[in-house]
Order: sequence, then C-alpha cells, then structure tokens
Amino acid sequence: MSLARVQSFAISLDGFGTGEGQSADAHFGHAGDRLHEWMFETRWGREMLGRPGGGGGVDDAFSRMFAPGIGAEIMGAGKFGHPGWHEDPEWKGAWGSNPPFHTPVFVLTHHPRPPIELEGGTTFHFLDASPAEALETAREAAKGQDVRIGGGPTMIRDFLAAGLVDHMHTVVVPILLGRGVRLWDGLEGLEKDYVVEATSSPSGVTHVTFTRATA
Amino acid sequence: MSLARVQSFAISLDGFGTGEGQSADAHFGHAGDRLHEWMFETRWGREMLGRPGGGGGVDDAFSRMFAPGIGAEIMGAGKFGHPGWHEDPEWKGAWGSNPPFHTPVFVLTHHPRPPIELEGGTTFHFLDASPAEALETAREAAKGQDVRIGGGPTMIRDFLAAGLVDHMHTVVVPILLGRGVRLWDGLEGLEKDYVVEATSSPSGVTHVTFTRATA
Repeated sequence: MSLARVQSFAISLDGFGTGEGQSADAHFGHAGDRLHEWMFETRWGREMLGRPGGGGGVDDAFSRMFAPGIGAEIMGAGKFGHPGWHEDPEWKGAWGSNPPFHTPVFVLTHHPRPPIELEGGTTFHFLDASPAEALETAREAAKGQDVRIGGGPTMIRDFLAAGLVDHMHTVVVPILLGRGVRLWDGLEGLEKDYVVEATSSPSGVTHVTFTRATA
Repeated sequence: MSLARVQSFAISLDGFGTGEGQSADAHFGHAGDRLHEWMFETRWGREMLGRPGGGGGVDDAFSRMFAPGIGAEIMGAGKFGHPGWHEDPEWKGAWGSNPPFHTPVFVLTHHPRPPIELEGGTTFHFLDASPAEALETAREAAKGQDVRIGGGPTMIRDFLAAGLVDHMHTVVVPILLGRGVRLWDGLEGLEKDYVVEATSSPSGVTHVTFTRATA
C-alpha cells in the first residue's frame, strides 16, 4: 500500500510551520533556521551537508525516515520558492542544483510551467490541482512507493482536512515565533482518526507522530 | 525568594488552554475534561478525588508540585466561574465548598466583592488590579512562599507578557481543540528569557517547563 506521509515537519511551540516575511533570502521568513537546527545537529543532517559528526539519538532516527520508501513528493508553491517566483520563467526553485528530494516532486501552483529536471533524480512538475488529484498523480509517479506530503503548513493542513494523510511526523521546536503560518488551524478533532504519540528529545524538540489506525 | 509559578497548566496541541462556550455546566467549554484526564490518572489526582490507584510516573511527579511551597494563588475571573458569575451576589465559585487551593486566592475581576472564606483554608479575595499589583498583594499574603499563577490562559499570557513568571509548567495534551482561548498569542521570543525543557510521558502528554535562568 502506498502511504501519504509527512516527515520531519517542524513547527514552533505556538504552532507556526513558517515565519512571517518569506522572501528569496529568507525561505522561512523571520523564523530563519530556528525550526531546523535540531536536524542539522543529527548525523543524518551532517551527512546532507557533507560534514562529519552529529548526534545519533532519537532526532537522527526520525530524520532518517525522510527518504526510504518514498517515490514522489508533493509540495506547496511556498516551499518551492518565495512569493512571486512564478513571475521569473528561469527560476528553478529554492533548492539548488541538486535538491535533497531525488524523486519526482509535484509543486502545487496556480501558475504551472514545464517540468524542470535537476541533478540527483529530482524533477519538479507543476500542477494546478486539488489535494486528491495531486495525490493520485504523485502515487502514479511513485510506482507503488509512498508519497511525501512535503509542506509548507498550508498544504499539509489542506491534505489533513481532506483526510489524505496516513502518517505524519511533526517536530515541535521549543520557540515561540508569534507570527507566520499556523499548521493546526481548523483541524478540530483530528486526533480521533490517528494514534498520536509524543517523544521528547534531549535536544529540546518533541517528535509528535500521527499514525492512521487503519494504515 | 518568592517565585511566581505556573503549575500543571494544560493546553491542547494547537495551544488552547480552554475551549469555546464556557458555562456553569462546562467550565472548560467544549474541551470538557479532555485537557485534564492525564492528571486524574495519576496517584496524586486519584488522591484528590478520594480514589485509590493511578500512575506514579512523570505525570504524577509533575502534578505533585502543585501545592508544596505555594502560599497564595492568583486566578482569572474565568477560572473562578462562568461568564456572568459576578451578577449573582451569592455565587461562591466553581470549586465547591472545599476548593483544592488551601491558601488565599486572589481573583482578578472588574467586579470586586467581599472575600469568601471556604473550608480547607481557601479564601477568595477579589482584586481589580494589574498583574504586577496583584502579584505584590499575593506575595504579601504568601508570607515568603511562592505564588501560583493559576490561569486561565488569558491571565497567564498577561503575566508572561509582563515578565512576571519565574517558572512555568505547561502540559501539552495531544488533542486539537480547534477553538477556545489560546495561551501563546503575542509571546514571540518568550523562550529567550528561560531554560525550556520538554518531557514526554507514556500517557501521551508532554510536560514543557520554562525556568527563568536567574530565578
């Protein structure tokens, strides 16, 4: 069975998945790197950056679930780039020449353009589609493997509200951003459809997983 | 030194400290008992209810910090009673004839009335005062002991914003209330003044503590 999975999606203690003021220079707005520092301190995170060291504890264990078994990702337009990127026809996304996805990636946007093939197996496809339609397309591309629901907060919230997420791993970072885009708005009672577990880490973050009982 | 402490203040994963629709029959609105079930399953919680059993783990350890060293409490009007209680001059609060506080309790209200002395050492005093003024009054009544900042979410937020809280123990319950009164609004950067720690419990809740570095 091909699952729809959220992996390592970080939010602040007050529930913001991205800060205010996203721009080409500040992908997470005023949040900066603060939502992801825990990940860069894991062995997995260091490997991604080509650096030695890092912790091998629970943060690392969760981080390593990012890629295995994933055959495609769906992401929101705001994860692909800063507001207004669609006005630049040459823009190739905020993820460099060798993005960390290494699969087909479907970008949800009202401004579709031709696919962009980059190094390392990442090809960005652009879709103006509902969550359910996008998931069907991504599942086909994933060839039986799972589909990562990549974020940002708005698109994850939309997929949750549509009942499309089978497994979600969020990481609560002990900071108060105060402003930005919230993950949890309008999801009253979400826990009823899932087994919810919380695991705090010595790093200070808490891993909260939602696992659909039937998946 | 007399500290201002928040103990066992429960919030949902989406940050609500009380639900919507608070009334005489529903002290926490649509949240019901869901924010406090974890506490009723501890040995301490069972003792409060005069029942045997309960768990003796981390939830119990944190729960037991409720009373020791506390000489007075400050609470918001909404913790004392449902909206409109001030219109009933005979109303003695939502906490029964032997409230669980056993100290002077200062109720912040724009409708002060004479003190109410109940069984077990709880006397409710009514203050129309700023957070700083209320804390000064409560400290005097606490005779050198600590003052509990009792909630609800609005008054805790006000005390945090005024920089008056030395130690805060919040309990994140893995449910999404969707509506009600949020604890965290307008507190961007709060963590800078505190050491923040998270401890998840097998019960599913996560204890998050804010401890002022200088207290």
